[in-house]
Amino acid sequence: MGTENKVIRCKAAVAWEPGKPLSVEEVEVAPPKDHEVRIKIAASGVCHTDWTYLYDYEKGVKTRPFPLILGHEAAGVVESVGPGVTAVQPGDKVIPLFLPQCGECEFCLSPKTNLCFKNWSKTQHGVLADGTSRITCKGQQVYQFIGVSTFCEYTVVPEYNVAKIHRDAPLDKVCLLGCGVATGYGAALNVAKVERGSVCAVFGLGAIGLAAVMGCKAAGASRIIGVDINAEKHEIAKKFGVSEFVNPNDHSKPIQEVLVEMTSGGVDYSFECVGNITLMRAVFESCRVGWGTCVIVGWNETGSISLAPIDVLMGRTLKGTYFGGWKSVCSLPKLVEDYMSGRILLDEFVTHTLTLEETNHAFELMTNGKRFRTVIKM
Amino acid sequence: MGTENKVIRCKAAVAWEPGKPLSVEEVEVAPPKDHEVRIKIAASGVCHTDWTYLYDYEKGVKTRPFPLILGHEAAGVVESVGPGVTAVQPGDKVIPLFLPQCGECEFCLSPKTNLCFKNWSKTQHGVLADGTSRITCKGQQVYQFIGVSTFCEYTVVPEYNVAKIHRDAPLDKVCLLGCGVATGYGAALNVAKVERGSVCAVFGLGAIGLAAVMGCKAAGASRIIGVDINAEKHEIAKKFGVSEFVNPNDHSKPIQEVLVEMTSGGVDYSFECVGNITLMRAVFESCRVGWGTCVIVGWNETGSISLAPIDVLMGRTLKGTYFGGWKSVCSLPKLVEDYMSGRILLDEFVTHTLTLEETNHAFELMTNGKRFRTVIKM
Repeated sequence: MGTENKVIRCKAAVAWEPGKPLSVEEVEVAPPKDHEVRIKIAASGVCHTDWTYLYDYEKGVKTRPFPLILGHEAAGVVESVGPGVTAVQPGDKVIPLFLPQCGECEFCLSPKTNLCFKNWSKTQHGVLADGTSRITCKGQQVYQFIGVSTFCEYTVVPEYNVAKIHRDAPLDKVCLLGCGVATGYGAALNVAKVERGSVCAVFGLGAIGLAAVMGCKAAGASRIIGVDINAEKHEIAKKFGVSEFVNPNDHSKPIQEVLVEMTSGGVDYSFECVGNITLMRAVFESCRVGWGTCVIVGWNETGSISLAPIDVLMGRTLKGTYFGGWKSVCSLPKLVEDYMSGRILLDEFVTHTLTLEETNHAFELMTNGKRFRTVIKM
Repeated sequence: MGTENKVIRCKAAVAWEPGKPLSVEEVEVAPPKDHEVRIKIAASGVCHTDWTYLYDYEKGVKTRPFPLILGHEAAGVVESVGPGVTAVQPGDKVIPLFLPQCGECEFCLSPKTNLCFKNWSKTQHGVLADGTSRITCKGQQVYQFIGVSTFCEYTVVPEYNVAKIHRDAPLDKVCLLGCGVATGYGAALNVAKVERGSVCAVFGLGAIGLAAVMGCKAAGASRIIGVDINAEKHEIAKKFGVSEFVNPNDHSKPIQEVLVEMTSGGVDYSFECVGNITLMRAVFESCRVGWGTCVIVGWNETGSISLAPIDVLMGRTLKGTYFGGWKSVCSLPKLVEDYMSGRILLDEFVTHTLTLEETNHAFELMTNGKRFRTVIKM
């Protein structure tokens, strides 16, 4: 290909500093180094985590270096590969992954977790294995958000951060499997391990919550109670499998008491898909004594969850998940095929499709609660 | 038998009011009613929970009615049975149980829990199914602590609160299976489900903690790290299987950091056997990212555990247990046999044997940390 081994000049939505809107700029994307892959991004979902690191920086979240290119839920096509790459080749459709699967560490070798910390400390600081980013703008290094950066027409990631997917996969849909949908869906299937006939409650019906609902349904749950303070979510949530809907604002008593009453003792599995520490306690307390399991899915790195020991002693379990328990490289191809065969819904999540220039608008749509997922098409 | 259907006059250590020492009195124990069993208590362990409800009443624990007879970790012989009882007969050796197993409720029918709430609200308030206690003293009803009351020569409990045990079982030893030892041992085997080769840490090496150590060893753990601020615990803990000992007072850094360093990332299973909410967080944080499981065993009904969501999101699990996950009526006979065949240690827990008149001294021994278990022999 004509661009191989060359710096590619392309467009990106650059975050120059926290708290300020993104600015679309021309950037330079260097060729991939050893065991790296350069990807032409086709589409990128806009996830709440992107917003958090740009706008919630004052609330104690881990500081990310700026300038930064956000975006981490995408799909694209391999443009070129660096020396030593064998898993993919130019032209392959891929999903770049913020969670690696190196295949060799104690985590990758354990069936108990999907985590892999290959180069973790570097990617968390916006650089790749050699300590630098592959992207520059106006002579400055631009950091790659969690090692990815998909609000950019091209990016470079390590080969163990790339999942090769089906050649017919529609990239503007399967991009959602790169973060939110896989996370919620896997929280039900891999982490809670919902069983046939279970009673479930999903708190927060954004993309992650709806995906958790879909996971509960796939597992054969008999009741799936959706909980959201936005009554408009009820209709769309039905498409994903919600059998009942509760708006906490319609009740004077705490939502956990409402749930416990509705289910004569609490649900078998509950999911917190918001990232609110006060809600986390309520979600935990919505679980049944004896065996109820609460899975924390919503991201929160600033607060503390407070639980009464007695609620733990009485047999409830608290778990959490990062990327839904999927071992990233090997699971994503299967999830893409599950979408293509109709077992996973993705189209229904996409409420808006915008251009890279409209990424700031995507953030506005997010904060006013009017969308599930916005997809940026390059 | 000569006492059948008659009121039995016998001795008991009565707690007339919270915060005051027990007083040995003559009490009257009524015959068992329908589906109840009257037991001649042979021996009773003295558990920290007994102390808590007598002396910690100002710290927000659930109020128990007084006058009260404490004691809930005992063994004895059936003296007589009420109408309808088929599971035991006079002369049977038994362990009275504060946790019932009715065999019919949704909890008993579930393999996921050992809890059973048959008559729970009554026994928690010191009375049996008909709303009254079977014990009186000086014309006053004396409440039965969690429906049991074993600091008394005789007591009456429902038949689903009685486990029939081997006729050769030494009652002054197997009494310990009625609470503490079963709880700690089961926390490792039934709740954490420790696996062969696991790395475990047990915080608090009292009777429950040592029993948890014993459970980890039975499960084949490769390392069992005992943690206690009392250095004297190290020697005895070795007998139960501790392979390493850590005294938090010997370290300037937080104990969870010490454990994470010692184990290159954290333990697979950790057990909180103290009931201290600050320690609970440390015990949780001692667990390995990805799959570490923390089991809360120490009783605490007054405070709140505080956890960082990120520690949950990164794959740690928090669980708790009540009576070690053992379905009480059907499991205790097996545990007694495990002791008789040498698979469970019990003799090593007993540091003092006292009389009923010396029960207050047993509480003193407990609070100065000089004993593991005191057994009151009737």
